[in-house]
Amino acid sequence: MSADIRPQGTQQNPPGNAPRPPAGPAADSAFLRACRREPVPHTPVWFMRQAGRSLPEYHAVREGIPMLEACTRPELVAEITLQPVRRHGVDAAVYYSDIVVPLKAIGLDIDLKPGVGPVVAEPVRTRADLDRLRDLTPDDIPYVTEAVGLLAGQLGATPLIGFAGAPFTLASYLVEGGPSRNHERTKAMMYGDPALWADLLDRLASITTAFLKAQIEAGACAVQLFDSWAGALAPADYRRSVLPASTKVFSAVAGYGVPRIHFGVGTGELLGAMGEAGADVVGVDWRVPLDEAARRIGPGKALQGNLDPAVLFAPTSAVEDAASAVLDAAKGLEGHVFNLGHGVLPTTDPDALTRLVEYVHTRTGR
Amino acid sequence: MSADIRPQGTQQNPPGNAPRPPAGPAADSAFLRACRREPVPHTPVWFMRQAGRSLPEYHAVREGIPMLEACTRPELVAEITLQPVRRHGVDAAVYYSDIVVPLKAIGLDIDLKPGVGPVVAEPVRTRADLDRLRDLTPDDIPYVTEAVGLLAGQLGATPLIGFAGAPFTLASYLVEGGPSRNHERTKAMMYGDPALWADLLDRLASITTAFLKAQIEAGACAVQLFDSWAGALAPADYRRSVLPASTKVFSAVAGYGVPRIHFGVGTGELLGAMGEAGADVVGVDWRVPLDEAARRIGPGKALQGNLDPAVLFAPTSAVEDAASAVLDAAKGLEGHVFNLGHGVLPTTDPDALTRLVEYVHTRTGR
Repeated sequence: MSADIRPQGTQQNPPGNAPRPPAGPAADSAFLRACRREPVPHTPVWFMRQAGRSLPEYHAVREGIPMLEACTRPELVAEITLQPVRRHGVDAAVYYSDIVVPLKAIGLDIDLKPGVGPVVAEPVRTRADLDRLRDLTPDDIPYVTEAVGLLAGQLGATPLIGFAGAPFTLASYLVEGGPSRNHERTKAMMYGDPALWADLLDRLASITTAFLKAQIEAGACAVQLFDSWAGALAPADYRRSVLPASTKVFSAVAGYGVPRIHFGVGTGELLGAMGEAGADVVGVDWRVPLDEAARRIGPGKALQGNLDPAVLFAPTSAVEDAASAVLDAAKGLEGHVFNLGHGVLPTTDPDALTRLVEYVHTRTGR
Repeated sequence: MSADIRPQGTQQNPPGNAPRPPAGPAADSAFLRACRREPVPHTPVWFMRQAGRSLPEYHAVREGIPMLEACTRPELVAEITLQPVRRHGVDAAVYYSDIVVPLKAIGLDIDLKPGVGPVVAEPVRTRADLDRLRDLTPDDIPYVTEAVGLLAGQLGATPLIGFAGAPFTLASYLVEGGPSRNHERTKAMMYGDPALWADLLDRLASITTAFLKAQIEAGACAVQLFDSWAGALAPADYRRSVLPASTKVFSAVAGYGVPRIHFGVGTGELLGAMGEAGADVVGVDWRVPLDEAARRIGPGKALQGNLDPAVLFAPTSAVEDAASAVLDAAKGLEGHVFNLGHGVLPTTDPDALTRLVEYVHTRTGR
């Protein structure tokens, strides 16, 4: 990081419950205020996967560049991260990357196959395989530091959210060797060799932590830990076999005082535990109404969500009715960040997203 | 159906709450007793997808025969349905079929593509398309009547469960034109044209009802309505846009007095509504512990489930620990049918299933 770029969110941990206000220009943004459960001028909005495949300008700049290569080009990462901020007027940017980037950065042979997802050449299935999971250092990811630095300079008062995949989701890709619907091999290890499993998740927690720290130290003023597949787990299994590793990640970055968001899909039964892992903000998919989610999560957390991304394929009036229902369910929350209940779907009309931002801002503006 | 085959479960609706005991030889089976919430000699066990792809003897008899064709050959259907009963000693057989069989039977151009799933040549997306969804009559499915008749003769005291796909899941295949991860087009119709949507689901409810009636009248002594994709819906959307059609199916078969099972995956938030649709038994996937599921469903229903099918890839001791936890959570239930929380995964070791049946029987036997 060059010395003249002021990080937006590098702070010590606060004594109290809520994340402490960062010193940067985004400090007073609606997004960070909502994460800190403070009053907001309007409900802040951003969209998971807002940077990327739904935008024509994204396809234009990515043309001919494989995704994992794109993730290593700081100017391109910054441009792609900025595109949805310019177009939609969202209240936060989210760092453009992929959850396997840190795994690739420590030397694993991973490829993103179009239409398939991450494919791991040599899956991780034995204790000997763990040796390949060495620690991630800032030197492995100079492009992250550089891209976040560029963004911190260009985003001004718009906060940047750093992001990383959670240990369980990364483990599933590594053990299965690619995307999996049923996670058979992953769960076989989890149930059959709990000690090996715990060591695997612990290593992944260290790697994830280093990836998030690099983003925070370069200027990200919030982080989101994505546990995409956690919803495949029964609650008791999640608590016993996954929660410790995710907790380790969250405590390791607690000292920075930036809000920590935790999200997974189909995690209605896990919301309480995912909050306990150390999240300041719990992301909720569209299956659980926000008021019910708040009951499960308990006090002292903000919530993020939760419009069904498929609603955006319906006429505007139907989208607004559904968004309105989300805002109604959010009324009693201590803090609410409006988002979809999952990532923007690839064929979403970008104009529908822009209209949705405007609708939420207008309806909640004071 | 030939006159000498006595249907196992053709009965009038009882005055009370619970399904009335059928007259056939399976009447006193552990499975039907559990469905009726009566005391059982042991917890009955069957597995969704027990008939089919996990068994070598299945691959042997299916060799060279496309699945949808196999579904129209009564002797083959009976053989495949019987295979897991012979091998595992499960407490119920489940009719071997596919949820698209009734749609194919009314003349829709549907194919099961290996590795993909059902593919619909001309998707249903407009009001004019509804005309293609004519009613299903017994004459469209003589092979169902014949196969169930054969089975009723051969199963003796082992009950046969009939089955059908629920209107929402069928609608998703028809509207999307095939399997869909996000159901964008389906939800666009549901939100954007509620009248067309309601008519589509109503037609599918009639077709599903006719398919279940054919099985019951030929001798099936329970039915399961699979709403495989219902878990993709927010609770309010399910109640408004899906529950009426599923309720129509369940009430239409209520008069037979056979237990009606309702199941979907990822339906933790929908369990109460799925019970209200008219189910006697609510199937629960592995994400919600059975005691918590019972709280959501309320009294007067038996529960079915809910071991994570991926657990079967772990060593026997881990499988037994997990099965034991399911049985513990089921202790306070009014009725419990042991099952997996979803279908048997294709690469499951059949011996692991046999051992699991034995374990549940031994642990719960009196």
